[in-house]
Amino acid sequence: MSFELKQEYIDDIQERLEQGAVEAVTQELCELHPADIAEVLDELTKDEALMVTEQINPELLGEVLVQMDEDLRADILDTYTGKEIAEEVVENLDSDDAADIISELDEAKKLEVLSNLEDIEQAKQIADLLTHAEDTAGALMATELVKVNHNWTVLRCVREMRRQAEEVEQVHAVYVVDDHEVLLGSLSLKKLLTTSTRTPIREVYNEKIHSVRSTTSNEEVARIMNKYDMFVVPVVDDMGRLLGRITLDDVVDVIVEEADRDYQLASGLSEDVEASDTVFELTRARLPWLLIGLLGGVVAATVIGQNETELGEIPQLAFFIPLIAAMGGNVGVQSSAIVVQALAHQSISDGTVKRLTKELSVGLLNGLICALAIYGISLGLGYGTALALTVGLALLTVIIFASLFGTFVPLALDKYKIDPALATGPFITTANDVFGLFIYFAIGKAILGF
Amino acid sequence: MSFELKQEYIDDIQERLEQGAVEAVTQELCELHPADIAEVLDELTKDEALMVTEQINPELLGEVLVQMDEDLRADILDTYTGKEIAEEVVENLDSDDAADIISELDEAKKLEVLSNLEDIEQAKQIADLLTHAEDTAGALMATELVKVNHNWTVLRCVREMRRQAEEVEQVHAVYVVDDHEVLLGSLSLKKLLTTSTRTPIREVYNEKIHSVRSTTSNEEVARIMNKYDMFVVPVVDDMGRLLGRITLDDVVDVIVEEADRDYQLASGLSEDVEASDTVFELTRARLPWLLIGLLGGVVAATVIGQNETELGEIPQLAFFIPLIAAMGGNVGVQSSAIVVQALAHQSISDGTVKRLTKELSVGLLNGLICALAIYGISLGLGYGTALALTVGLALLTVIIFASLFGTFVPLALDKYKIDPALATGPFITTANDVFGLFIYFAIGKAILGF
Repeated sequence: MSFELKQEYIDDIQERLEQGAVEAVTQELCELHPADIAEVLDELTKDEALMVTEQINPELLGEVLVQMDEDLRADILDTYTGKEIAEEVVENLDSDDAADIISELDEAKKLEVLSNLEDIEQAKQIADLLTHAEDTAGALMATELVKVNHNWTVLRCVREMRRQAEEVEQVHAVYVVDDHEVLLGSLSLKKLLTTSTRTPIREVYNEKIHSVRSTTSNEEVARIMNKYDMFVVPVVDDMGRLLGRITLDDVVDVIVEEADRDYQLASGLSEDVEASDTVFELTRARLPWLLIGLLGGVVAATVIGQNETELGEIPQLAFFIPLIAAMGGNVGVQSSAIVVQALAHQSISDGTVKRLTKELSVGLLNGLICALAIYGISLGLGYGTALALTVGLALLTVIIFASLFGTFVPLALDKYKIDPALATGPFITTANDVFGLFIYFAIGKAILGF
Repeated sequence: MSFELKQEYIDDIQERLEQGAVEAVTQELCELHPADIAEVLDELTKDEALMVTEQINPELLGEVLVQMDEDLRADILDTYTGKEIAEEVVENLDSDDAADIISELDEAKKLEVLSNLEDIEQAKQIADLLTHAEDTAGALMATELVKVNHNWTVLRCVREMRRQAEEVEQVHAVYVVDDHEVLLGSLSLKKLLTTSTRTPIREVYNEKIHSVRSTTSNEEVARIMNKYDMFVVPVVDDMGRLLGRITLDDVVDVIVEEADRDYQLASGLSEDVEASDTVFELTRARLPWLLIGLLGGVVAATVIGQNETELGEIPQLAFFIPLIAAMGGNVGVQSSAIVVQALAHQSISDGTVKRLTKELSVGLLNGLICALAIYGISLGLGYGTALALTVGLALLTVIIFASLFGTFVPLALDKYKIDPALATGPFITTANDVFGLFIYFAIGKAILGF
């Protein structure tokens, strides 16, 4: 079973929808995996997608909505009343997916959905999930799980698991709790399969399990699950009571989103954009950094303007302006990227001083190599010793400065709980442009003797 | 159970190792999870780490080595003979981890390890795994799995599973095969728990499962597992025979590595570096892009040099050189980053023409806003209409050009099977610097009338 979306298939679907074959198309789509259906719908126009979703049966619709692009999902849910969402969409979903969908609705509709859920237990669970802060384990977890009491025997345990499994889609782990619901450990299916039925659970469960608090951040959950190769992690409250569980597939989404955000920040995009977004959305995401760059350019113009007389006498000074600016930017981005990745991956971190010292060595080494290279090239191209020396010395200084600055800024941001990835974008480049020019002209003045 | 590595703990361990308390330290470390032990060892010097690993018992050592930094692992395995690696390390590992470790050894040692494995079946399985190409499903999979024949009854199935489970660490899924080992589907534990023991497997297994070929690329495996929220995917050969399975935790590593590589390329780092690498390694990873930037700067100097006369007459032209260069670079990186992410995430892609048309609109819109802004600012700062017009028009042209260029390059690289992320680094920035200056001086000549 394999599915690969092709443009021809989308064209075909669109043509048939236009001809009114909505039912046939829907029937065909419903043979696919919900993730595939969502992928197809994402490629259609809003109206086309609505035609199809109206025909999909409720049980499937919820799964499809969960997998769909957020914007399209909002458009589709807008056409439903809160009662319809409760009865046709949410009822068939796992608690975490249900809470995700409901959290995107406005306050009035949220209440309408919750009050119209037939299963009051489900409503309570979802309402509980909605109280957790965004981007925490509590907001990420689902409440569906299989748990057994440590006083039960293996036999009773299997019987209870059978009953609970009826309600739980997929059994990831069996958790062992005490009479107060405090998490004690987990029970491996292997143990369950290979132990005598009269053995008490207390004697066979595994105490050494990792759990996370409901207030733990998403990123920390991802780090822990990745480090310990866990497929599912239990979530507990401050008393240690079992609240829910987080599965690795949900954490993969967190990891991918996190990586995308860092990448976009490093590339100068201020919001989460996709190639398929509108021209307006793409422009809005790109403009902020461009305007910062523009401002940096104006400041740079002022810095150069203050050296107008010198430039009039030695126009060659202008030749190396782009080189100095570009190299400062490149080195700065390299340095801050290394810090950002270190902060993202490592639990232990060198002190700021140690990092800056090391960066100083790297900057010195890179700077010396580049400075010697440009000194040689400039002489070779006949720019004269004084200019070659100016450019070489300025480059060395700029590279060392940019290394230190690029290392320091993300560390400082991180200290004040600001996303250090912010430092990697045009910010560092722009700042280094301006500082670089300052240094360049200062050295130029000293050597060329104005 | 929770562990957070602190610098003080490392300092303490190092002090005690120096005082000769190797056994006590090792004993203490062995209480930790293998991933935590590996994390501690990664922070020690090579000699200190060796002192500890010599004392760790074989069963644990394998797990620790798997989790450890690659460089340190190579150092440690260098001190063992092939026979020792076979008997003390590999014997206790899952086939995929064993194959990973062995694949890092030189050819002679590889053979020595395989020929010294006591369990000939394990040796065969590992040798099979080693034949698969790097970065494919075959190289990523493990052979440990539980499989049942479709002709068996549920009862026989449970009995067989019990037997197989003895050898398999963790049961992720139960696969159903025919007499020729061809994968037919999977059996959910829920079904197994809730079906009468006399039912034949044939009647209860799930046929609709996703599988991947052994030749499928790592990235495609990650995409499929992420899309369909799978915890484990079976791997088959071209005949459809079940070869092994890949679990989501291994795929998470693929996703993280992939994201890191893209990020590093975008930041101008040419190899996989970490903040903890040596000054020499860090310099080597950074120098290639810096030298490319240097070359770009020299070309830019030549471009400006050809306009020396004009610069002598109107030195103000030099003021906006950094602005033009920086904006071209920023826009180019934004454009290529959007393409790179689209290529990484989407299975369907718009045609090149459609993408470039859209990018043209975005470039036009961004360009107009920025051009108007700089025109106004320049006038306000008293640079005169002619210069303000030159800078505004040049900026508009540069932004449009950089948008198109930044979109086109990664698409072209992708077409020729080169990693499109290569386009996002200093390459785009440098190229746009040079082209931007060309455009700037051309427009300057036209307007200022040289």
